Amino acid sequence: MKVKDIGEFGLIDRITKKPKDKDILVGIGDDAAVFKTTKGLQVLTTDCLVEGDHFRREWFSPVQIGMKAIEINVSDIAAMGAIPKYVLVSVALPRTIGVEFVDRLYEGMWKTCDKYKIEIIGGNMTHCEKIVISITLTGEVDKKNLCLRSGAKSGDFIFVSGQLGNGMAGLRLFQEEIMGFQKVKKSYLEPKAKLKTALDIAPFVNSMIDVSDGLAPEVEHICSRSNCGAIIYKDKVPISDEAREAAKRLEEDAYDYALFGGEDFELVYTGPKENFEKVNGFLVGEIIKDKKISLFSDGKEIAMEDKGYDHFSRGI
Amino acid sequence: MKVKDIGEFGLIDRITKKPKDKDILVGIGDDAAVFKTTKGLQVLTTDCLVEGDHFRREWFSPVQIGMKAIEINVSDIAAMGAIPKYVLVSVALPRTIGVEFVDRLYEGMWKTCDKYKIEIIGGNMTHCEKIVISITLTGEVDKKNLCLRSGAKSGDFIFVSGQLGNGMAGLRLFQEEIMGFQKVKKSYLEPKAKLKTALDIAPFVNSMIDVSDGLAPEVEHICSRSNCGAIIYKDKVPISDEAREAAKRLEEDAYDYALFGGEDFELVYTGPKENFEKVNGFLVGEIIKDKKISLFSDGKEIAMEDKGYDHFSRGI
Repeated sequence: MKVKDIGEFGLIDRITKKPKDKDILVGIGDDAAVFKTTKGLQVLTTDCLVEGDHFRREWFSPVQIGMKAIEINVSDIAAMGAIPKYVLVSVALPRTIGVEFVDRLYEGMWKTCDKYKIEIIGGNMTHCEKIVISITLTGEVDKKNLCLRSGAKSGDFIFVSGQLGNGMAGLRLFQEEIMGFQKVKKSYLEPKAKLKTALDIAPFVNSMIDVSDGLAPEVEHICSRSNCGAIIYKDKVPISDEAREAAKRLEEDAYDYALFGGEDFELVYTGPKENFEKVNGFLVGEIIKDKKISLFSDGKEIAMEDKGYDHFSRGI
Repeated sequence: MKVKDIGEFGLIDRITKKPKDKDILVGIGDDAAVFKTTKGLQVLTTDCLVEGDHFRREWFSPVQIGMKAIEINVSDIAAMGAIPKYVLVSVALPRTIGVEFVDRLYEGMWKTCDKYKIEIIGGNMTHCEKIVISITLTGEVDKKNLCLRSGAKSGDFIFVSGQLGNGMAGLRLFQEEIMGFQKVKKSYLEPKAKLKTALDIAPFVNSMIDVSDGLAPEVEHICSRSNCGAIIYKDKVPISDEAREAAKRLEEDAYDYALFGGEDFELVYTGPKENFEKVNGFLVGEIIKDKKISLFSDGKEIAMEDKGYDHFSRGI
């Protein structure tokens, strides 16, 4: 069996052990790990951008690569209901790359760090034939605001924080070398973590995750960890006009981008109906007891083919 | 200017900013970053193994790659006088690799984690044409035990925790495809962090660093951060018989391995003469006021050519 044949999730289950240390509240399997200190809870996440797999130098400026590397990690910390704090940057670079590139890369990282009032406090640099940027980000969270994938309850509404499908539409336009559509292309090149939204809603939701892989797989992750199922109302999924137009031009389905496309970095969260007024976002579904994920459109259940953005089944 | 033309240190200075957050005690430029929590000080480090640059699959078993990835990070935490705690593992893998490889890789990581009573609490997995293993390790330290590169004082003795040159001898034997010399080859394949030594001596030393790049560059790092110079007594540098024999066979100088070779993961530390009895290790030099690093042999100063293991000037 080769790595490419199995989902990321399956692989992660193989290499996971149950935490022994009682200070570990959340180990492998959520957007970030959480451990106790007497100051409160420390949150740790790491995410990686690999040239050819996550970005291409023809599409992204070095500043944009740096910005995206930080944003996607802030998105993971946000999805825990936590406040990001400190960054470590591990960079592997080809020997042929110019120092100008490195300066611009860090300019992008620092720019995004400044926006979130976070700081790069360490890291390391080494060589690789492809550019690899591995970011570790710490965060802090009050226990009452901690949002796990495992907290969803039957009867919860499912929300998303914003329009989905823009990121994937942007990527597909680059892949097919189609001009125009600057707005969705920018969504792909310069995603923004929804930190403010996450912190606003954290006290009122039962579970949260960020959309790196598309709405359907993210809802599946929540259900799998929360031991429940879900109904997604396809017609309620918010999609921008430009993503629809891009999909039309590409002769593809904008709902596939939203449901299975990924690269959006919006948040998906579930909360009880009582908190409906306190929770901003687009209502797109419900959590149910039955451990099945169903997709409904126009009042009828429709087939959901798995087209998830699987890092182990395709590159960019 | 290309990345290959400038030292890692120069590059890091270009991308570093002075910390603004007053809770950051140590930012970029030491073995690990340190920040305050009310529990005490949290220490964070990240280090990366890249296939072709740090290891080859022909030389290392997957278990050994996993072990080394953890050991080199424990070594960085140890060099701060800190106790390692939690691990994040970010792995990029070629699509062609077998799942068996991943299982063995994590077996090696978990084995070394168990030895140090530390745990993998998160991470991520993605694709890259070359294997890249990026580890983040947290640690805890009492302020009185914190050992920085910047703490050396004029008059300090310079110590190393063990024999140097074994790692580089092992690497050179692999590169030249020379049979035998199992002991130094094993030093290269399976380095061990000197955590116990580090914790024992931490209260009695002024500065500490681990030897990833060879004794001379490490002493230079200490002097550069501590605003001082040093004399290294070449004849006092401890070198194993097997490293000497390997060097002889390769028609090279075992002292070059020790001084500039790296890959040893021993500790270099400086402490006041009063603490001499409390500090185990090999006395190899002295810290001086004059900001110059000199090498002495047989009572005379000898030229020190820079042959440092520079990740930006050569691979394996």
